[in-house]
Amino acid sequence: MDLPAIIADIVAHAASREDRGTVASYIPELAKVDPGQFGIAVATADGRLIEGGDCATGFSIQSISKVFALTLALGKIGDQLWQRVGREPSGNAFNSIVQLEQEQGIPRNPFINAGAVVVADVNLGGHQPRVAIGEMLRFVRYLAGDDGIAINETVAASETATGFRNMALANYMRAFGNIHHPVDLVLGTYFHQCAIEMSCRQLALAGRYLMLDGRHPEGGRVVSSSRAKRINALMLTCGHYDASGDFAFRVGIPGKSGVGGGILAIVPGRASIAVWSPGLNENGNSQLGTLALEELAHRTGWSVFSPPQGPS
Amino acid sequence: MDLPAIIADIVAHAASREDRGTVASYIPELAKVDPGQFGIAVATADGRLIEGGDCATGFSIQSISKVFALTLALGKIGDQLWQRVGREPSGNAFNSIVQLEQEQGIPRNPFINAGAVVVADVNLGGHQPRVAIGEMLRFVRYLAGDDGIAINETVAASETATGFRNMALANYMRAFGNIHHPVDLVLGTYFHQCAIEMSCRQLALAGRYLMLDGRHPEGGRVVSSSRAKRINALMLTCGHYDASGDFAFRVGIPGKSGVGGGILAIVPGRASIAVWSPGLNENGNSQLGTLALEELAHRTGWSVFSPPQGPS
Amino acid sequence: MDLPAIIADIVAHAASREDRGTVASYIPELAKVDPGQFGIAVATADGRLIEGGDCATGFSIQSISKVFALTLALGKIGDQLWQRVGREPSGNAFNSIVQLEQEQGIPRNPFINAGAVVVADVNLGGHQPRVAIGEMLRFVRYLAGDDGIAINETVAASETATGFRNMALANYMRAFGNIHHPVDLVLGTYFHQCAIEMSCRQLALAGRYLMLDGRHPEGGRVVSSSRAKRINALMLTCGHYDASGDFAFRVGIPGKSGVGGGILAIVPGRASIAVWSPGLNENGNSQLGTLALEELAHRTGWSVFSPPQGPS
Amino acid sequence: MDLPAIIADIVAHAASREDRGTVASYIPELAKVDPGQFGIAVATADGRLIEGGDCATGFSIQSISKVFALTLALGKIGDQLWQRVGREPSGNAFNSIVQLEQEQGIPRNPFINAGAVVVADVNLGGHQPRVAIGEMLRFVRYLAGDDGIAINETVAASETATGFRNMALANYMRAFGNIHHPVDLVLGTYFHQCAIEMSCRQLALAGRYLMLDGRHPEGGRVVSSSRAKRINALMLTCGHYDASGDFAFRVGIPGKSGVGGGILAIVPGRASIAVWSPGLNENGNSQLGTLALEELAHRTGWSVFSPPQGPS
Repeated sequence: MDLPAIIADIVAHAASREDRGTVASYIPELAKVDPGQFGIAVATADGRLIEGGDCATGFSIQSISKVFALTLALGKIGDQLWQRVGREPSGNAFNSIVQLEQEQGIPRNPFINAGAVVVADVNLGGHQPRVAIGEMLRFVRYLAGDDGIAINETVAASETATGFRNMALANYMRAFGNIHHPVDLVLGTYFHQCAIEMSCRQLALAGRYLMLDGRHPEGGRVVSSSRAKRINALMLTCGHYDASGDFAFRVGIPGKSGVGGGILAIVPGRASIAVWSPGLNENGNSQLGTLALEELAHRTGWSVFSPPQGPS
Repeated sequence: MDLPAIIADIVAHAASREDRGTVASYIPELAKVDPGQFGIAVATADGRLIEGGDCATGFSIQSISKVFALTLALGKIGDQLWQRVGREPSGNAFNSIVQLEQEQGIPRNPFINAGAVVVADVNLGGHQPRVAIGEMLRFVRYLAGDDGIAINETVAASETATGFRNMALANYMRAFGNIHHPVDLVLGTYFHQCAIEMSCRQLALAGRYLMLDGRHPEGGRVVSSSRAKRINALMLTCGHYDASGDFAFRVGIPGKSGVGGGILAIVPGRASIAVWSPGLNENGNSQLGTLALEELAHRTGWSVFSPPQGPS
Repeated sequence: MDLPAIIADIVAHAASREDRGTVASYIPELAKVDPGQFGIAVATADGRLIEGGDCATGFSIQSISKVFALTLALGKIGDQLWQRVGREPSGNAFNSIVQLEQEQGIPRNPFINAGAVVVADVNLGGHQPRVAIGEMLRFVRYLAGDDGIAINETVAASETATGFRNMALANYMRAFGNIHHPVDLVLGTYFHQCAIEMSCRQLALAGRYLMLDGRHPEGGRVVSSSRAKRINALMLTCGHYDASGDFAFRVGIPGKSGVGGGILAIVPGRASIAVWSPGLNENGNSQLGTLALEELAHRTGWSVFSPPQGPS
Repeated sequence: MDLPAIIADIVAHAASREDRGTVASYIPELAKVDPGQFGIAVATADGRLIEGGDCATGFSIQSISKVFALTLALGKIGDQLWQRVGREPSGNAFNSIVQLEQEQGIPRNPFINAGAVVVADVNLGGHQPRVAIGEMLRFVRYLAGDDGIAINETVAASETATGFRNMALANYMRAFGNIHHPVDLVLGTYFHQCAIEMSCRQLALAGRYLMLDGRHPEGGRVVSSSRAKRINALMLTCGHYDASGDFAFRVGIPGKSGVGGGILAIVPGRASIAVWSPGLNENGNSQLGTLALEELAHRTGWSVFSPPQGPS
């Protein structure tokens, strides 16, 4: 069966599922999203875009933004970043502060919140938050080839008002000297980055450089081949909080989820995939999105742990 | 450059390195091994075997045996195994008991010691240890196509005499009901399994089913395609203790290391690789072996996180 | 009101209470004890013995034995003991192994299980378990002035058969070199010590040296004044597992509880008190026993945290 | 020997000691204090005041203020406080955030920083910080009978500027709903409370209510007898961070230390003692102060764990 038919099946299956998980409630603005939605988009290495469901509806990308922010930060300071952030799975819940205490303010990886806050601190780079936020937005628009991508200021404000836990993390790392700018500026940058809104279509397009060995499909390099490979590795080992091992086991594709219900998944040399459904499972990852990716991987044979095969 | 030339370079580079890490001392018998040794063997999907250095010298496979033991246990009880062992990276040192306390006697994954002891308990299956040990040995010989593989009884006895930490782990899990047989029988099985001796050549041959989607190169299936893929996924996320993330980042290939200094690494559809050098780095993985795999991955382009490419 | 009247009231109140907690179930033999029992005995500094309820019924002293074992071990090796055991409250459940991992096999204090196992290792002193057990029994008989005190072999065997967690603790500490004898001999000693049976009367008498600044009421010193004071301090800060702070807050008297439902409490210069009721509260301490001591402390004014006052 | 002679000896011994510990450096203003100073003052139950050394020199009371703040908060909301703060020793370093994560934002006791921040939140009570700070200052002046006690604004500002760890703790507890006021107001109150300056003389006088069963020596009750007893109990079990057990073992008197180098110690019915020397030991408690109290307790026989005796 060809890819469009598989996608159509996945959309149909998603529509029929009754257990859709729970919409994230800790960011008030996100709690209002209708859980009945599901979208999917697949950008292939040969330039096709196959979509289904609510693939054009914007959603809050939240932690998926950490992939783009990491890419930017590596562009700024290169491997020096790894002196301030680790590369190991955390083995704990995504907002855990315990690890930070045991490891002297060095977060385990750039995809847990603490690590992403350090990355935001790097991206701030002595500028005002609006400068760093503007740079991030331009970068994502460039990756997706779509200037319509924007930040939802209501969501950003919603996080700013309730982000006590992130404030705790940031202050804690500042106590260890691992945050260099004032905490409110760093978190302002971070919350705006998380509040970027994209559709599945835009997100799948923005992820293409990671399937293309670091190259932009329109030409030129976004990152080196080695860096693209390493970002994919981090997505696989750390992209789904403390369910990363399970996602690797079931799906077998590097992916990064966000509490807005989106997941970006990369099949190197084959596809950049975005799925979205707002209900989350008990690990904080999109319930229908995870199931959709499992079905997609199963039917296409797309897994980094199997011999190369399947449609492309 | 072709693969034999790359292997020859790697052997030459290994010979010239001065910092060779530290030979494991906690198993007295292992501490006696000459750290000057280095071997490598690559079995390719198209049936070649390319070797170098001390590729025919036997060494204690130790934790690499966990891959074969897991394969056997899944054959016995299937996915029921996952009710007794998790699939997440541990985020802690390989012999950590903290996780067990927090998670009610369920080890995080089958590749940390506690998880491997549960797997040994499954493989014991009501029989005497010598039955289970015999089955394991026959299985490894069948995978490698080599009846010369044997257990080093001195090493097995050496572990039995000093394995207080493993005794602690096993008793602790028994207190939670997650070990079903008497602890000394389970550990007797486990210590003998770890004391299997293989050369790089034998190990690379034994790993071929994991590159071949679960099929034995001589014909027939060892495991299903789905199971092969999942074992590879576990090797990538959990195969190097709390340096698994770093190994994925640097090398990008599923691998399982042992304190004897060996590493088995699998490039799905391409190669089954064994390296060995007794000196360990600060994470307990072979120092030269890790560097050799990093060089091999870099020069061949073999990484599950890059588009398929390179020699095969 | 005088002390006999207070004791009579306490016995009456205990009889009328409906919530009696839960009898410990993890030692099968203890689970058979009738929860309807309650006993109390107070030995005063001026030589009186005031009793009530089931004060002559024997019960398993369990962890209360740790006080007598500690006294013996300090007699053997003095302050060298503190190189192998700490003196700080544990802040964790009584059988926690986490602390041991973080603190390199040195238990936090001699009253958590791990610490008591180290103390048993000291008391073993190169002899056979029956020698150490015999010495312990003679010591307790001497303290209480009662040769009728004995070990319940059924209880000892019951613990031996199910003590997987203690086996884990002991093996774990042996891995760090903090247990010197074979683990089964150490635990054999420990389980027999815990299986000593005493009545409240016997226990209150046995504790008199701790109220009398280290002196035996029949003459002579059991321990120095300084050592008696320090054992009392340890009972106050560590005697009730992770409810020690609450016991100090509510009752204000050094005490040591056991899962058999007994508590030994010491008012320096005033009284040695034993209470017993088999039902335990959520912290593993006798429910009625704790309430009885709280009432006794309140009505007598006996608290080490108030100006000296009250009967005696 | 009488008490004045003992105090004179202690002052002489302190003067001759060479290892004076290390002055706290994390609050810049405190790091400037001359480590050569030592003061002591003892207020007895019979109304004497015996002093020595730098007993009239003011120092930053820091965490000792937690005793007075707790007394105030209990006066405001009584035992409801214990729904928001525990009463158990922490078993961890004084600024640990791990415990908070494991226990859902409820600090272990009111004397670790997190607990003291909750107490400050209670004392704020809907008012502006200057109101709560004014109330605290009036309370301490009333206890000591000395209107000269003041806050060192430079120290308060010094903490405000660097207190990232306390900001982390406060935000973290706010995420759990256990801080009710804006974090900056709560910490403003807390930092000013810690910056109160007192001499040993003033501090010993301020502590008299705790030796006098809750009564002010000039007449009237500060707290009930029961509450005085309980505050003393908390000082004994939790007053010296994770060296509380050791302090109870060596000294045997309820005490509360501060990183300014002061310690307030209470012998119920006998004495209120203040010592001060700026150098800290490895647990963050005054090095000479701890030794002085150990000597004082030894020579007077003052210990809550010995039969009542010694001078008064």
